[in-house]
Amino acid sequence: MRIIGIDPGTAILGYGIIESVANKLKPIDFGCIRTESNIDMPIRLGQIYEDLTYLIDKYKPDVMAVEELFFNRNVSTALTVGQARGVVLLAGVRAGISVYEYTPLQVKQAICGYGRAEKNQVQEMVRMFLNLKVIPKPDDAADALAVSICHAHSATMLSKLAEK
Amino acid sequence: MRIIGIDPGTAILGYGIIESVANKLKPIDFGCIRTESNIDMPIRLGQIYEDLTYLIDKYKPDVMAVEELFFNRNVSTALTVGQARGVVLLAGVRAGISVYEYTPLQVKQAICGYGRAEKNQVQEMVRMFLNLKVIPKPDDAADALAVSICHAHSATMLSKLAEK
Repeated sequence: MRIIGIDPGTAILGYGIIESVANKLKPIDFGCIRTESNIDMPIRLGQIYEDLTYLIDKYKPDVMAVEELFFNRNVSTALTVGQARGVVLLAGVRAGISVYEYTPLQVKQAICGYGRAEKNQVQEMVRMFLNLKVIPKPDDAADALAVSICHAHSATMLSKLAEK
Repeated sequence: MRIIGIDPGTAILGYGIIESVANKLKPIDFGCIRTESNIDMPIRLGQIYEDLTYLIDKYKPDVMAVEELFFNRNVSTALTVGQARGVVLLAGVRAGISVYEYTPLQVKQAICGYGRAEKNQVQEMVRMFLNLKVIPKPDDAADALAVSICHAHSATMLSKLAEK
């Protein structure tokens, strides 16, 4: 199973593509889609959609896993991130792949077995799971890989439950 | 100039298409796109995108005018509406039409000449501007028509300024 994980955002959107075969995880590609803040929002959303659709076409993931964000901060930040998130979910559904959403708590739980794990603990576990020499950079790409791994673990668990 | 106005939302999204010729406004079509709350969000966003793209293909508006929403309420509502809004802006930009955004204050100012106008005052002015017998229903469609009219007025004003 090939998974594309997404950490949504407008200025910077992290993506991480992994392959999960027989319980082993392999990194395929990871990085960021960036858009310039001086460009009109509709155009930026168009760029995110195009770039993401390109990645899906190129790597042909079976599923998309998207981080579900919560804000105790600013309402206008939530609206802006929501816009990017809408475009991400649309790119997945229009490419015909299943889209799953995970909360930060679920991601931490799946990666570290502990919902209150620190950011650097999660990143170190991502490095280990994917057998990488260094922690993936930038943080948004590491976060996206964490969501992919979270889905791989959940999917493995679901298929194990189904076997019983 | 043909304008499609949008009042974004996930459960119900209002649209209103008008034609502005020589300072006269004519309603072309208005209504709502509805999605069921028991369906997965990515699928609902896909439906909104498809329906809106269909309307743009059918009526070929020159511009899209979208209401910019503000929430002093719930952050998670802002995130959800943001998702629908992202899909709306994307549908406009991918159809190759210019997208404009107006705040509720700008809409009220353009329609009633007064930023604190009540909802029913705005709706009554929409009815009068478009020479309709009754106020368009539901509210979301009337709100979308108000955004279209707001753009028509702003565009007329801008072209008058340009003539000087």
